Amino acid sequence: MRNLITDVPGVLVGNAQDVRAATGVTVAVFEQGVVASVATLGGAPGSRAVTLLEPEMTRGVVDAVVLSGGSLYGLDAAGGVTSVLCAQGKGGTFGGITLPVAVQAILFDLINGGEKSWLNEPLTIRPPYWDLGREAARAASQDFALGTVGAGYGATTVNLKGGLGSASTVTGRGFVVGALAAVNAIGSATIGDSPYFWAGAYEQAGEFGGRGWPSQVPTEALQLRFKGQPAPVAATTIALVATDAKLTKSECKRLAIMANDGLARALRPVHAPNDGDTVFAAATGGAAESLGPAGEPPALTELGAAAADCLARAVARGVYEATALPYRNAVPDFRQRFGGR
Amino acid sequence: MRNLITDVPGVLVGNAQDVRAATGVTVAVFEQGVVASVATLGGAPGSRAVTLLEPEMTRGVVDAVVLSGGSLYGLDAAGGVTSVLCAQGKGGTFGGITLPVAVQAILFDLINGGEKSWLNEPLTIRPPYWDLGREAARAASQDFALGTVGAGYGATTVNLKGGLGSASTVTGRGFVVGALAAVNAIGSATIGDSPYFWAGAYEQAGEFGGRGWPSQVPTEALQLRFKGQPAPVAATTIALVATDAKLTKSECKRLAIMANDGLARALRPVHAPNDGDTVFAAATGGAAESLGPAGEPPALTELGAAAADCLARAVARGVYEATALPYRNAVPDFRQRFGGR
Repeated sequence: MRNLITDVPGVLVGNAQDVRAATGVTVAVFEQGVVASVATLGGAPGSRAVTLLEPEMTRGVVDAVVLSGGSLYGLDAAGGVTSVLCAQGKGGTFGGITLPVAVQAILFDLINGGEKSWLNEPLTIRPPYWDLGREAARAASQDFALGTVGAGYGATTVNLKGGLGSASTVTGRGFVVGALAAVNAIGSATIGDSPYFWAGAYEQAGEFGGRGWPSQVPTEALQLRFKGQPAPVAATTIALVATDAKLTKSECKRLAIMANDGLARALRPVHAPNDGDTVFAAATGGAAESLGPAGEPPALTELGAAAADCLARAVARGVYEATALPYRNAVPDFRQRFGGR
Repeated sequence: MRNLITDVPGVLVGNAQDVRAATGVTVAVFEQGVVASVATLGGAPGSRAVTLLEPEMTRGVVDAVVLSGGSLYGLDAAGGVTSVLCAQGKGGTFGGITLPVAVQAILFDLINGGEKSWLNEPLTIRPPYWDLGREAARAASQDFALGTVGAGYGATTVNLKGGLGSASTVTGRGFVVGALAAVNAIGSATIGDSPYFWAGAYEQAGEFGGRGWPSQVPTEALQLRFKGQPAPVAATTIALVATDAKLTKSECKRLAIMANDGLARALRPVHAPNDGDTVFAAATGGAAESLGPAGEPPALTELGAAAADCLARAVARGVYEATALPYRNAVPDFRQRFGGR
């Protein structure tokens, strides 16, 4: 086990970043098409090709999930990913045309110090995201870096550098569950000014420092801190949970809803009006084990709880593994602030 | 401050229970109609008159929120409430007809040991809920009991008796926020076999025992436990958050979504396939302070975070204040299990 979402067989992940622009793209590419859905609980989402993920929509097989910086400009990334998928012969066919499905969510990293040249010369400079998407898809493999990479490159939280995180687990019934998160939260993954993570209870094997929880949380640590006070600034944590269980699209939607509880446990506040928090859920169906009768609730409850735990851990790891951007006034990273590097 | 949802001016709460049937009804009655919405994140909800709470629906003023036991049989309760509201002259008028709006969610307490006589003789015995609704509405006042009362009477969690909980707070901007919850969770409000509440970080003034958090959470404490393993059993935590801020229905929906994060932090697992977890959000608009420009995100973020905190506290209080049902094999209450009574 790598403690990465790629522990789910058939899931590959690639990163690409534009260091000068301080932004990037992360892609999960599926070796075989997966059943997928999405639950968007943030108030300001940006997404591409996600309407088809609703249970009542016909198409339900997805070839890649794209997480990207760049806010609405970043939605080009799925295009570059799609070109790679097409070259690989992935996707269904319609009238002889190959139609790979790359769904996408974005995060807002446009005010992080990086040079967003396309905003100054929009008619002559293209945003980098289409190319970053292509590069990330080509890089997809079982091993990938965490922290200040890919969609997490330009990400921040209110008090610490954010980044790309991942984690995996195996449920009691033997299903593999993994999570991948680009953590650009409006709030904080840590409690007050302490090095304790909100997700501390869920940590496995010291994967984000092994500090556990504080035994008492002082009232001042509950003082709400989030980006953009008083002026609103968009944030967003975007994520994918994946499993080798065989699920319907409706079951994937339930998995995505329950996985959002992992965001609630790892970040405070979250799901805010200016968050675009979006969680995709994908089921490869590769497991030998059966989930049981369709929608069998106990097995799905276990999967959902495992997805929530994994996503909470992935969020904490994304912050723990990040390194600060090299700009004056850049938000510090966890280890600058609390030691450990 | 009573540390109850009735700290929000204009919100009254009444309880009624049928001791023999081990079930009951809790009603929040609003002195003036409120703007309200709902976010249903559980997978098996039962509700009445909630479609009108969606932002795109025309009607948006609500006179009462009803929380009830009885699963789908319990949906009669809003009828009894409506009769009381009608007698009080509440509600809008349409063609000269008074139309009070009582919206409702239910929880599943039909297998808790109580005598559900109407299930045995459905053609001769009416379910008690219409009458319980009327009685609860008549009892509505600023003071009301917590624990094994009202909609919390028959409620349980997987390891401890559930019950009715409430809490309140005042935000930095001076808005009053309160929460009311009937805790019948599929999972647990406490961590493993310990007396620590998942909501421990949010506790105010020792309102549920003052134990804080464990500094380390042993892996076995994360072993998932929920009702109905292996056979599915329905559960459900239903709740209302209220504020004196003036909000649109869309803003109330955002408040309800963010308040669900309080359920995620206080219960594990939650939002499961067999949960009907439903959170209403109501805004009286009575506050002198303005929220700012419509949808002003920082103020709404603060409100949502406060609602999540309050609801997490209300859930823990509901379990902490409950007393076990008097049946053999009834799930124990918190203080039987951990002392304190």
